[in-house]
Amino acid sequence: MVQIPNTPPPASPAPRSVPTSADVARLAGVSRATVSYVLNNTSAVRISEPTRRRVHEAAEELGYVPHAAARTLRAGHSRMVLMPAPAVPVGPLYGQFINELQWALGRLDYTVVQHGSVGLHGDEAARAWAELRPVAVLVPGIGLGPEGVAVLKRAGARAVVTVGPARVEGAHALLMDHGSVGHCAGSHLHARGRRRIGVVVPQEPGLEAFSRPRLDGVRRALYGTDASVAELPLAFDERAAAELAARWRELGLDAVFAYNDEYAMLLMCALQDEGIRIPDDTAVVGADDLMIGRLLRPRLSTVHIELPSGRDLADLVDRAVRDPDATPEAHRVLGASVVARDSS
Amino acid sequence: MVQIPNTPPPASPAPRSVPTSADVARLAGVSRATVSYVLNNTSAVRISEPTRRRVHEAAEELGYVPHAAARTLRAGHSRMVLMPAPAVPVGPLYGQFINELQWALGRLDYTVVQHGSVGLHGDEAARAWAELRPVAVLVPGIGLGPEGVAVLKRAGARAVVTVGPARVEGAHALLMDHGSVGHCAGSHLHARGRRRIGVVVPQEPGLEAFSRPRLDGVRRALYGTDASVAELPLAFDERAAAELAARWRELGLDAVFAYNDEYAMLLMCALQDEGIRIPDDTAVVGADDLMIGRLLRPRLSTVHIELPSGRDLADLVDRAVRDPDATPEAHRVLGASVVARDSS
Repeated sequence: MVQIPNTPPPASPAPRSVPTSADVARLAGVSRATVSYVLNNTSAVRISEPTRRRVHEAAEELGYVPHAAARTLRAGHSRMVLMPAPAVPVGPLYGQFINELQWALGRLDYTVVQHGSVGLHGDEAARAWAELRPVAVLVPGIGLGPEGVAVLKRAGARAVVTVGPARVEGAHALLMDHGSVGHCAGSHLHARGRRRIGVVVPQEPGLEAFSRPRLDGVRRALYGTDASVAELPLAFDERAAAELAARWRELGLDAVFAYNDEYAMLLMCALQDEGIRIPDDTAVVGADDLMIGRLLRPRLSTVHIELPSGRDLADLVDRAVRDPDATPEAHRVLGASVVARDSS
Repeated sequence: MVQIPNTPPPASPAPRSVPTSADVARLAGVSRATVSYVLNNTSAVRISEPTRRRVHEAAEELGYVPHAAARTLRAGHSRMVLMPAPAVPVGPLYGQFINELQWALGRLDYTVVQHGSVGLHGDEAARAWAELRPVAVLVPGIGLGPEGVAVLKRAGARAVVTVGPARVEGAHALLMDHGSVGHCAGSHLHARGRRRIGVVVPQEPGLEAFSRPRLDGVRRALYGTDASVAELPLAFDERAAAELAARWRELGLDAVFAYNDEYAMLLMCALQDEGIRIPDDTAVVGADDLMIGRLLRPRLSTVHIELPSGRDLADLVDRAVRDPDATPEAHRVLGASVVARDSS
């Protein structure tokens, strides 16, 4: 980093102590309880309009901001919905889903907080999350077990919702079966007459939770047919793709499901550089239905994945928070369908 | 969402109340103060090993998790570093930066929390963040003003760090001048003999903070030369790109700086479909140096952007927290250099 020579330091304001609700009460000439009623918009207590105004003016003048932690302690729970921040850079599909979810929860008056629990796993992470006393926790991926769910509930979480391949005891489940993504791709390639089908398995850590079920899905689709499946480990870099492409003819494959559109672009490009014709020699199918697939030549066939709507998920969270003792719900939320273009 | 018929509901455990440090103290037969000393690893007080063990065992048995809010109230501040969650889906470059930053702050014993303040802007957002009483706030982009900084500091934030184009009074500043990205691209195209240079300006909301300075940077690079600059509004979809490409010949441009690699891919593909030869008829330069640029044919020239290291930024945050009264620092952190490939 390049240090920039400072212009003469701006006169820094004298350090002030953090204003409290007691300061607001003193300035407004009311009790602390009244301040709390007014600023939390409590309707249970009747407070005159002039008093309300005086409290608001005093809070404004002092720059008082309510303290979420203090409110949490009083109420026993917060309006905070906690999610772990994704540890791998998320694709545009998932990023959009998260934004929609935050927006929908915000409209229901929740605050969404993504906890950067990098390096913590499973129930250990649950303990770190529990320290913030969220009212609900939303956990994508795998790793959280029944013990972690119990830790969160004991810490006051009224709802734990997992988003992953299987149910976890005590938690609501949005079941995302990535096997269906692979199944789609496998059936499509088989229907197009392909019989020796490669499946790309990314070597980047953190993707196994998606790549394994996708591979298994292809296997399931082809089970009992005359087609065979070959696992193709691949790192997301040009050299690895070129090496795989150089071995392509001896592998004798006539199709490949490339995990997703980005890997498909990487591999397709390497295959074309090797003189392999697509789709004549090898059919290629990606997944995620990203824009880049439509820009490739030939245009990339892909599996379109339908994530749950952020609004539906926000409604589930809210329902669960209102009725923490209800039997956990389970919903299948992943839709998968092939978009056939020119590469297969 | 598809509701899945429930198997017989698992016997839900009887609701328990949230265990407190008082419960731990009772079970371990020690005072609450001792529980607090042991679980917060305070070294100021000597406590025997057997007592420590008894407290840990009792906490384990009860499933007690410390309460961050209570600790915050006692200590007057937390170890929470708050960042707003990005409102637009972030690219891989920025995603990696965020991950590294979280990891580095985690090693310094901070908890990173991304606040989903979708729909809140500037100082209004600052008030929502202040409610969580973070010890430091890290704000990318623009919008936060001196008033917002003051709100955060009054609420106990020891450090506010902005990451953007200009300094904000009272805050440390990581200055990212995206003008340098455009300047690089403009100088490069001029040096290659191009004289009628288009600059793509994305129509997606939220990108103006980057696209405007990039456009201005190109203008600055060409100021006083015989080259001209044309602004090209473009939405990120195939139809918009095809329409722009159809008008290309009448625009009479011999080069385009396409905002970033993704827009470059979109536009390059549309130009090639129109029979425009790249780089012979039109040179194309992207930015971000993504993998996709190396997979395009011709290979895409791009501006490589160097973000600050997450570790350096974490160190700055930590330094600022330790010395909240220090004069705000300002660092230039954006490196930009052209990677010339075959498209320009």
